[in-house]
Amino acid sequence: MTLRYLTAGESHGPALVAIAEGFPAGLAVDFEAVDRDLRRRQKGYGRGGRMKIETDAAQFLAGLRGGLTTGAPIALAVWNKDHENWKDLVSPYARGGKKFTQVRPGHADLAGALKYGLDDARDVLERASARSTAVTVALGALAKALLSTLGVEVCSRVVAIGPREIRPDAPPTPAQRDAIEASDLHVDDEALAAEWRALIDAEKARGGSIGGAFDVYATGLPIGVGSHVHPDRRLDARLAGALCGVQAIRAVEIGDGTQVGRPGYEFHDAIHHDPARGFWRDTNRAGGLEGGMTDGMPLRVRAYMKPIPTMLHPLATVDLATRAATQARYERSDVCAVPAAAVVGEAVVAWELANALLEKFGGDAVEDVRRAVEAYAARIR
Amino acid sequence: MTLRYLTAGESHGPALVAIAEGFPAGLAVDFEAVDRDLRRRQKGYGRGGRMKIETDAAQFLAGLRGGLTTGAPIALAVWNKDHENWKDLVSPYARGGKKFTQVRPGHADLAGALKYGLDDARDVLERASARSTAVTVALGALAKALLSTLGVEVCSRVVAIGPREIRPDAPPTPAQRDAIEASDLHVDDEALAAEWRALIDAEKARGGSIGGAFDVYATGLPIGVGSHVHPDRRLDARLAGALCGVQAIRAVEIGDGTQVGRPGYEFHDAIHHDPARGFWRDTNRAGGLEGGMTDGMPLRVRAYMKPIPTMLHPLATVDLATRAATQARYERSDVCAVPAAAVVGEAVVAWELANALLEKFGGDAVEDVRRAVEAYAARIR
Amino acid sequence: MTLRYLTAGESHGPALVAIAEGFPAGLAVDFEAVDRDLRRRQKGYGRGGRMKIETDAAQFLAGLRGGLTTGAPIALAVWNKDHENWKDLVSPYARGGKKFTQVRPGHADLAGALKYGLDDARDVLERASARSTAVTVALGALAKALLSTLGVEVCSRVVAIGPREIRPDAPPTPAQRDAIEASDLHVDDEALAAEWRALIDAEKARGGSIGGAFDVYATGLPIGVGSHVHPDRRLDARLAGALCGVQAIRAVEIGDGTQVGRPGYEFHDAIHHDPARGFWRDTNRAGGLEGGMTDGMPLRVRAYMKPIPTMLHPLATVDLATRAATQARYERSDVCAVPAAAVVGEAVVAWELANALLEKFGGDAVEDVRRAVEAYAARIR
Amino acid sequence: MTLRYLTAGESHGPALVAIAEGFPAGLAVDFEAVDRDLRRRQKGYGRGGRMKIETDAAQFLAGLRGGLTTGAPIALAVWNKDHENWKDLVSPYARGGKKFTQVRPGHADLAGALKYGLDDARDVLERASARSTAVTVALGALAKALLSTLGVEVCSRVVAIGPREIRPDAPPTPAQRDAIEASDLHVDDEALAAEWRALIDAEKARGGSIGGAFDVYATGLPIGVGSHVHPDRRLDARLAGALCGVQAIRAVEIGDGTQVGRPGYEFHDAIHHDPARGFWRDTNRAGGLEGGMTDGMPLRVRAYMKPIPTMLHPLATVDLATRAATQARYERSDVCAVPAAAVVGEAVVAWELANALLEKFGGDAVEDVRRAVEAYAARIR
Repeated sequence: MTLRYLTAGESHGPALVAIAEGFPAGLAVDFEAVDRDLRRRQKGYGRGGRMKIETDAAQFLAGLRGGLTTGAPIALAVWNKDHENWKDLVSPYARGGKKFTQVRPGHADLAGALKYGLDDARDVLERASARSTAVTVALGALAKALLSTLGVEVCSRVVAIGPREIRPDAPPTPAQRDAIEASDLHVDDEALAAEWRALIDAEKARGGSIGGAFDVYATGLPIGVGSHVHPDRRLDARLAGALCGVQAIRAVEIGDGTQVGRPGYEFHDAIHHDPARGFWRDTNRAGGLEGGMTDGMPLRVRAYMKPIPTMLHPLATVDLATRAATQARYERSDVCAVPAAAVVGEAVVAWELANALLEKFGGDAVEDVRRAVEAYAARIR
Repeated sequence: MTLRYLTAGESHGPALVAIAEGFPAGLAVDFEAVDRDLRRRQKGYGRGGRMKIETDAAQFLAGLRGGLTTGAPIALAVWNKDHENWKDLVSPYARGGKKFTQVRPGHADLAGALKYGLDDARDVLERASARSTAVTVALGALAKALLSTLGVEVCSRVVAIGPREIRPDAPPTPAQRDAIEASDLHVDDEALAAEWRALIDAEKARGGSIGGAFDVYATGLPIGVGSHVHPDRRLDARLAGALCGVQAIRAVEIGDGTQVGRPGYEFHDAIHHDPARGFWRDTNRAGGLEGGMTDGMPLRVRAYMKPIPTMLHPLATVDLATRAATQARYERSDVCAVPAAAVVGEAVVAWELANALLEKFGGDAVEDVRRAVEAYAARIR
Repeated sequence: MTLRYLTAGESHGPALVAIAEGFPAGLAVDFEAVDRDLRRRQKGYGRGGRMKIETDAAQFLAGLRGGLTTGAPIALAVWNKDHENWKDLVSPYARGGKKFTQVRPGHADLAGALKYGLDDARDVLERASARSTAVTVALGALAKALLSTLGVEVCSRVVAIGPREIRPDAPPTPAQRDAIEASDLHVDDEALAAEWRALIDAEKARGGSIGGAFDVYATGLPIGVGSHVHPDRRLDARLAGALCGVQAIRAVEIGDGTQVGRPGYEFHDAIHHDPARGFWRDTNRAGGLEGGMTDGMPLRVRAYMKPIPTMLHPLATVDLATRAATQARYERSDVCAVPAAAVVGEAVVAWELANALLEKFGGDAVEDVRRAVEAYAARIR
Repeated sequence: MTLRYLTAGESHGPALVAIAEGFPAGLAVDFEAVDRDLRRRQKGYGRGGRMKIETDAAQFLAGLRGGLTTGAPIALAVWNKDHENWKDLVSPYARGGKKFTQVRPGHADLAGALKYGLDDARDVLERASARSTAVTVALGALAKALLSTLGVEVCSRVVAIGPREIRPDAPPTPAQRDAIEASDLHVDDEALAAEWRALIDAEKARGGSIGGAFDVYATGLPIGVGSHVHPDRRLDARLAGALCGVQAIRAVEIGDGTQVGRPGYEFHDAIHHDPARGFWRDTNRAGGLEGGMTDGMPLRVRAYMKPIPTMLHPLATVDLATRAATQARYERSDVCAVPAAAVVGEAVVAWELANALLEKFGGDAVEDVRRAVEAYAARIR
């Protein structure tokens, strides 16, 4: 019961809504920074038509006064401009349109319809859509605001599109971060971006889709966030769960976690100490996490995103109503959304970090939290 | 508030203890099956000396009567035989021995000691030790007993030791499963096992350690377990979190989740239906999970285990007391524990599945649960 | 993780917002019934001016399509008409007005301001205000819709205003329920209502306030909802917690719980059985709850509401800014709000019952839940 | 996820077991103080034979080293001496004895057996028995140890036996506390105790039972523990839920919560401040809780305990197996257990307070928590 949230909203419904509970009072929320993250989620090479319709912005409805948190639950909405075109089809008050029964492989359509006893997979896909990550990103922006006051910064980088993968070992420098933000493939290497664009173009040309991977980084974390004492207190477990809770993320890796071909002598990070820096390492293979806790090095976690299963030349499927063989119905989609997913990844990582910090440091006012972090930093030098 | 547990216990303390709450009444627990899983966790090529001392068995203290659950919380203990040798050193009632201050890279030692304000990393490592997974396995055995009455079976296979990895696409057949159980590397391919033994021997010879990966499978799951409606209801998110909550697991993959080099047309599983089988697929790239829910195909998830960081020729570190450079203290350890980790992986997957099934089907008596599962299976044919 | 909710919203902010997660799909929501409960919360003899400004109605934003739940989280808003007059004073985007520093005894003002480090108690009282119970009531109306499909009905009756208390032993008959709804004191006894009005008038005349008590009833519950196996599974514990979570409720009683002057032989309900009715009782001193579970008799719980602490002739207090003695600032308020609180009480009881039923019976579609309830009813005859 | 626990254990099973998770490291546990609370729970005028058999003591199995917490989960067991006589009847490994089918009104017997599909109510009553509160008290003793290091003390007083009730307005002085501990009716008024003994004797003489009420107090709490921002964060809601989660507690009252006959002008506590004491009140009608938070005055909550439903001349009931009318089976019991319940009440109140303090102040080491409490106390003077 530290930081918690619920989200709601359909892809073409009136709004996406979130309530976040547990933020300390006195936190200044930069509304422009929230909307900037929303826009970052909408960018990227290979996106489809929906992103041209929406220009997302968060409307705050509760929990702030004059831009400052009060300790009360925060409510926000991202209104769907496209709802105007769908209001007779998808609305709490109306239901219409042809039933969606040619369920799409790779989506929640079939399992969701059976589970919930629905005869129109539209009821499933409207909620399962990654459009819901708009509010996830808004929640993440709140978490980042808190983290920032505590000296923690979160960012990300795309590290694979299709088969072309890189493994940088450090978070981006400020200059690299600028390059990443300027890039439509969310990477600080334009030559690589050009290769990736070609891969995306090729898939687009044949009506397909392409996946990839991204790294999320966090700097400035003190040693000892998370815990080894119980599985559900481990920060690595929470980060893995949070990232796999994002649509289309199918694998998660802490530091160099998949590189098990490397033997023990090349997998760990020797410990050093000096009075100025405190404890430090000269490598960061662990991605900043040891024993379920931060180790003082930058956090680095990788998430793998599957190719979006909606494709122009559809996969074979079955009609939900008749059980007869058919082809998956096409619903407007992206060819590649890995850069957008990286922004969502930042958001869920930021949320978990904010939560773990509040668990560790308590505090109902931002100043109380900051003071506790400082007292702890002094204790563990 | 469906199924929940807490565990406690130190590696050399009197006992590992667990309480499991939420099991329906009327479930028959095969005590021998529980202990068999405990012994499976102790096996494997490359284990260290501790496994020779302990022959784990679970003592049930509450929640069963005459081998049947009653709906009451279940308590169990796995007593540490080795505690007799440690009772003056590590006990609720005594503290002794030289302080453990040469904290080991790759372990919880340093972060745990700083976080909790401890001057003896022994207080950390006793709890962070993978010995605690003995009760994790016992809890998993309870979950498997419930799953089994509902037609769900869970098993595992080691798929990588060091750099040598395989990617089988189906759960083991009964014959393969027998071979896996007979193998000291938990795999149904003796030639491969021989290769792996050679890799382990080589690391052992130089005082090192080696990691790997394992797959966990579950068959018999109905379509629609888990949910797409909220991130923390997604079964993939929960499985990823649970597996990354196991010591030394640093990456998790759902189905072919890391294989993002494959384009969209080769990543998904076309849907078919026939009256006898209901909905089915002819491939299982999704590992049995679509949109955060089971899709009716066998569940397949992969976990990557890092090489154990305790090695005979220790890594450079710092003394916790003096902050001076030193070498990590050696504490008896394994060279390779991937086969054991696979058994732990089965346990945590079984637990999450049992929990998700109980959420979906309710029921305080096993017969109520079974009846609800059957009614649902009939509804979704 | 069965049914859960979060609410947000300030008394004079743009809106009160709620998200409810965990309702099964296929539940028909009668929007008029939701708004009817909102209006019931606004009625009652002794209310202040605010209730003349607001005519509450819920706007659903997510989780329903054409009036039917889909299994997705439900979002709703109750917009504050009065916000127009306050938008420069209390808004996520603006802060204004004179600081509220003459903190009022009996309210959250002082403790909230100190806890959250706020120098304007307005930031506290806007959230602590009972205005937030508007969305509580909307959530309760959703829970009642589910309960109703399962044969469970929830209602209430005021049983005390000031010192004049009654102790009826049964839920109201349909005719009595009509009388209660028609009464501005939410009671089926007009002579008593007249007495209570006189008490309220007397307090109003001297600028004071008056409390009271109400009973909440639920009929149609099967035996065995809740549990004896762990404290936090007990239905009595949950009901007590939920009712004491409502502003100004300071005591809760299950059945005849406070009547400890009665000896054991007059405190319990003998058990009977006949084939037509199943198990039944000829008394209901237990209020329908034994051992933390429903016993098949009507649920009856009583909540005691303190007199509202805002009074025209204010209490002595201290100025938050100067620590100097002063008098509590007057903020528009009611003289008596017990009839409104009874409607809120229905809502929180309905929520807990819906949650406990879903825990027991599972089910993602209303038909699955209904079928499980029926199968269970047949089993326990 | 701050402080959490699970308990397990049957009344005549091998042991009662608890795991407590979330205590900070470095807390000194006085084992004698834990056992003293266990013995206090066993005392009281009017207890039955079982209390002569058991001399409860807690065995700690995990989470402490040499009497100090380490941050790891704490496991403890209270072994049942009487189990030796029951081991063939009630044991995880054995089931025996005549089935208990004459279910007792007022107990969990009937509802529990139906709910869980059990044909022997022994499976229910073994868990539903108040014997399980032995570990509740041990958990409470841990919470008290933490509270004590933070300057908070918890105690209790019986305030009613049968119809004879008192309403003292302040926590006992040290001298009164000694008198309470010395009294077999847990009260500091020997004349009153004599009256109560007579009431108990009279009920005992006719084979009946008698209930009562007790107050729990806590002193030394800072202002602002708990919260007004969401119902489940309110400390009054949590305390009410925790107390109603104790067997036989059927009503809970915060401060003077049931005294709604008193008008507003006599119900609240004017606020004062002086530099030496900070904020204070000259009355404490609110029982130390305003707006869901502590207000700096002593906490005072009252719980009402029903007469124990097991009586020598049994109530009418039905046989579970045959549905035929019969009389409730007699199971050894107490005539009055209110003094014991008061000790259990201290335990659950202490637990909730410890949890709320840790939520507010965070901290993984006791010194961190203490420092945060002090910094806050200085901030709010």
